[in-house]
Amino acid sequence: LLHSFNSEDIKMSAEIARLCKASLQSAMVGTDENNIQSGKDFYKFFFTNYPDLRIYFKGAEKFTADDVQKSERFEKQGQRLLLGVHILAETYANQEVFKAYVRETINRHRIYKMDPALWLAFFTVFNGYLATKTQLDDATKNAWAELGKVFNEEAQTHLKNSGLPHA
Amino acid sequence: LLHSFNSEDIKMSAEIARLCKASLQSAMVGTDENNIQSGKDFYKFFFTNYPDLRIYFKGAEKFTADDVQKSERFEKQGQRLLLGVHILAETYANQEVFKAYVRETINRHRIYKMDPALWLAFFTVFNGYLATKTQLDDATKNAWAELGKVFNEEAQTHLKNSGLPHA
Repeated sequence: LLHSFNSEDIKMSAEIARLCKASLQSAMVGTDENNIQSGKDFYKFFFTNYPDLRIYFKGAEKFTADDVQKSERFEKQGQRLLLGVHILAETYANQEVFKAYVRETINRHRIYKMDPALWLAFFTVFNGYLATKTQLDDATKNAWAELGKVFNEEAQTHLKNSGLPHA
Repeated sequence: LLHSFNSEDIKMSAEIARLCKASLQSAMVGTDENNIQSGKDFYKFFFTNYPDLRIYFKGAEKFTADDVQKSERFEKQGQRLLLGVHILAETYANQEVFKAYVRETINRHRIYKMDPALWLAFFTVFNGYLATKTQLDDATKNAWAELGKVFNEEAQTHLKNSGLPHA
């Protein structure tokens, strides 16, 4: 295949981006108190529902939702996480930029020696969180599933090309 | 002012984003040889035309364009730089995400103790590079100038709020 994207693909990725971006309006980044809270809320949801994954957060392995709420570290981390997901949605319609951001994200997480299966699992976690903020219709859920699938494909390819464990 | 953005602002930021994104087609990120070269070419242009700024690149203070060409470090750094600029253009139409990415970029550069005046100057450097890749018409040059101005305003505000030197 000389061209991996045709005009149908481009239209579809634009529609997926539109749906994901619309749903993220309920979890906006920013410096206002409600934006800061949205970021903390992700980690409160994450640590409450997936306590085993706290092992990746050195010093916070036993954090409860209350600990997250009071934490300056997770105030910052919450904004970083939300920003990362917003960037995924904002770039999805431009697949080469999206995939470059996936690779950069993988590079930045190399030091944490994550289980490679967690890259796909992340989108289940994030959608669980997002569903606490807004109603996600089926089209939006499918859009996130597709974005997560494309993210994961590029992530695993890049892990492999980098000589790292991959799923 | 209760609402800092009105529909005219939104239309204008979408048009600025469109023009910047279009010009960046000539400096695309990616894993192909021409994409890798585009990233290196930024640093070759940068170090050749602004040799005094090499001081911020520890170990590369005396790098020539030839040194950049042969460098694995600048192969990676070139992709990171191009990705960052693509993300600016991709998010510009969503100003809150754009500004969050500006703040994150400032946070990540804190360790380099940069002269705060360089944040605005960067866009002159980058446009000089981009002009070696494609013809920039006046509308596109104005779009980049406006994006750079908004970037710099948020950057200086964030530096100030972080208790750091600002311009």
